[in-house]
Amino acid sequence: MKETTLAVNGARLNKRLQQLGATGALDGGGVCRLALTDTDKQGRDLVIEWMADLGLSVAIDAIGNVVATLKGQHEAPTVMMGSHIDTVSTAGLFDGNLGVLAGLEVIETLIDAGITPKLPVAVGFFTNEEGARFAPDMMGSGVYTGDLPVETALATIGIDGASVGDELKKIGYFGSAPFPNVEKSVAAFFELHVEQGPILDEQAIDIGVVEGVQGISWYEFTFMGTSNHAGTTPMGYRQDAGLVAAKVMTFVNELALSMAPNQLATVGAFEIKPNLINVIPNFARFTVDMRNCDEQQLQMAEHKLDAYIAEQTQAHGLTYDKRRLARFAPVPFDAGLVDGIEATAKASGLTTKRLYSGAGHDAQMFAPQCPTTMIFVPSVGGISHNINEFTHPEQVTNGTNVLLKTVFRMACN
Amino acid sequence: MKETTLAVNGARLNKRLQQLGATGALDGGGVCRLALTDTDKQGRDLVIEWMADLGLSVAIDAIGNVVATLKGQHEAPTVMMGSHIDTVSTAGLFDGNLGVLAGLEVIETLIDAGITPKLPVAVGFFTNEEGARFAPDMMGSGVYTGDLPVETALATIGIDGASVGDELKKIGYFGSAPFPNVEKSVAAFFELHVEQGPILDEQAIDIGVVEGVQGISWYEFTFMGTSNHAGTTPMGYRQDAGLVAAKVMTFVNELALSMAPNQLATVGAFEIKPNLINVIPNFARFTVDMRNCDEQQLQMAEHKLDAYIAEQTQAHGLTYDKRRLARFAPVPFDAGLVDGIEATAKASGLTTKRLYSGAGHDAQMFAPQCPTTMIFVPSVGGISHNINEFTHPEQVTNGTNVLLKTVFRMACN
Repeated sequence: MKETTLAVNGARLNKRLQQLGATGALDGGGVCRLALTDTDKQGRDLVIEWMADLGLSVAIDAIGNVVATLKGQHEAPTVMMGSHIDTVSTAGLFDGNLGVLAGLEVIETLIDAGITPKLPVAVGFFTNEEGARFAPDMMGSGVYTGDLPVETALATIGIDGASVGDELKKIGYFGSAPFPNVEKSVAAFFELHVEQGPILDEQAIDIGVVEGVQGISWYEFTFMGTSNHAGTTPMGYRQDAGLVAAKVMTFVNELALSMAPNQLATVGAFEIKPNLINVIPNFARFTVDMRNCDEQQLQMAEHKLDAYIAEQTQAHGLTYDKRRLARFAPVPFDAGLVDGIEATAKASGLTTKRLYSGAGHDAQMFAPQCPTTMIFVPSVGGISHNINEFTHPEQVTNGTNVLLKTVFRMACN
Repeated sequence: MKETTLAVNGARLNKRLQQLGATGALDGGGVCRLALTDTDKQGRDLVIEWMADLGLSVAIDAIGNVVATLKGQHEAPTVMMGSHIDTVSTAGLFDGNLGVLAGLEVIETLIDAGITPKLPVAVGFFTNEEGARFAPDMMGSGVYTGDLPVETALATIGIDGASVGDELKKIGYFGSAPFPNVEKSVAAFFELHVEQGPILDEQAIDIGVVEGVQGISWYEFTFMGTSNHAGTTPMGYRQDAGLVAAKVMTFVNELALSMAPNQLATVGAFEIKPNLINVIPNFARFTVDMRNCDEQQLQMAEHKLDAYIAEQTQAHGLTYDKRRLARFAPVPFDAGLVDGIEATAKASGLTTKRLYSGAGHDAQMFAPQCPTTMIFVPSVGGISHNINEFTHPEQVTNGTNVLLKTVFRMACN
């Protein structure tokens, strides 16, 4: 099995990233293309124009996913690339868009070289990956892979009161293409993405070899104590809900540090009542976001947190409630594909590091159905979901060349 | 010097507490008579009617303080009792009201016994002690004792947009009595009050001998860090403003416990931003309420807090701001009067405990000008500023008898 000597046209790809980023551009830089808005439609129209220019067949399904396919020599399962082009409200130009336009660039490179692949090669963009306007996130890829019923997705009401179904029809993207049986029809799925974290950039590494997506554990805790006068209630007589919540917040951090480096833990939301300077709080509510790429470790962290909360609330005379907000087991990617990405990158003279994705991605919806993996390129400063998100053009090109070689090996050899 | 064998009429006093509490009564129990509202006027009118029924001369000054005086045999400094009858919005019947009606009961007991005291004996109620509608609290006693300019007080705008001056005139309590020189005209000031804390009730003690009012240190801290993705930012790369605020909240509690029993510390208000489950907080703002009856200890607590905050913010890469919200040194009461209260209570067969007031009171405004002290009676469960505030009738009577004996000794012997 030989590696191709083909290379993508980095200038063309980076120019398209800028062109797509001009759709829904924000005044101070960055972009806002919330799912199924008019600016999302403009972005979709532009990408489909590029797909059509290459003579690809473009399929749009009933949740608005768009998949463009370059026919292969054989009727056979497709080698698919893709990501999303919807964004959060203050986004950069790379998150999602890179995976779509890099896939397009890989296909255009094959076409430019006069290659008809043995297997079909496709690139897709999936509706509402961000979940910023409609929950849940990864909606389109969830429907595509059969994880989420299309009726449920279409009935979803967004933060502005609009429904997915109505907005899809309004922008003309309620399509008629059938949903495939991904397990049978997709040979492999690849998603190139910016890291959205600081590791590759800080360590000056070219390619992140993504072994999987971390498991996520989201819980909300509510503590109930007794409100009392801050000036007249001795320390030993208090049931201070805010204090115990703060102790848990500190514990959560120590727990993650003690399980370094795989365990992450964050208290992102926190409120107390009555929230007055001279009144001991009788109420605290906070969230705990824990992530780990190892399900057993994640469960261990959950158990330690539960034990600490039970102990501390009892010691301080509080009662508490616990509510699950989200819980996903880690998603491992295909070991063979992961090894292949690493070998390809190294053979190209690029530095690599194996890591897990901390964020959710469309690829994780494909992973249970077909061989799947991702390629990460560095985000400067780890910044993402921010107008200052940036990946250097040569790193965009490097990552896309690894994607090209990987797809070539699978679809063309 | 002999103790009087006189005793107050407890039934009459407790009945008046209920009668005054019926003015502005809340449906579920308790009372709301915010300063200078129509219900405050009704309460004032009722108490003045009782004062006038006893033939006392009633003076109303330009901030609405009301002082009723029983003439003495000599033109001499007055032995004064008093407190307030304004309340917070969900108050019990005892806070403030007890000190006023107990003073009235002491005077009525003297009159009933046919006694003309050597020194004049007065009882007053002072405008807006609670500060619940208009800040600052202890406004009327502050003006009365020269601590707060009357023009400043009259210009104060309340939470509902009304001014003290306008509201005083509207309810007919903008009076013309001159403000006295308290240092020269008041021989002593006594305030009977419910404890508003749990100590006397928990320890089954009759009389709290109040040695002074705690010093108060109120600061607001604002921490600035970096907002980042909770799933992609390794623990070691974070500048988590919420976490460091939580560590400070925990430290503040440990600090108070390490300086037991005199040091109190409370974080009552706390907010973080952006307050999203999966985003590391880049902003935290919280208040610290510290109290101690010893100024040196209070300063030591402040210094330790400052040092911890400097160390932790630096270690976590945060910047911070510090803003002073209030700072009062402890107010010691007159040692001779304190000893006298204790001796009188013990001679009456009552159990006593020396303590400091954790809350602010009108008495602390008098303390720098004239010999002053307070007498506490138990609050069941330590509950106050709450419709469930309650003090048993016999404890009301016990405290008032100690007040009677104390005033008698000073004014009648």
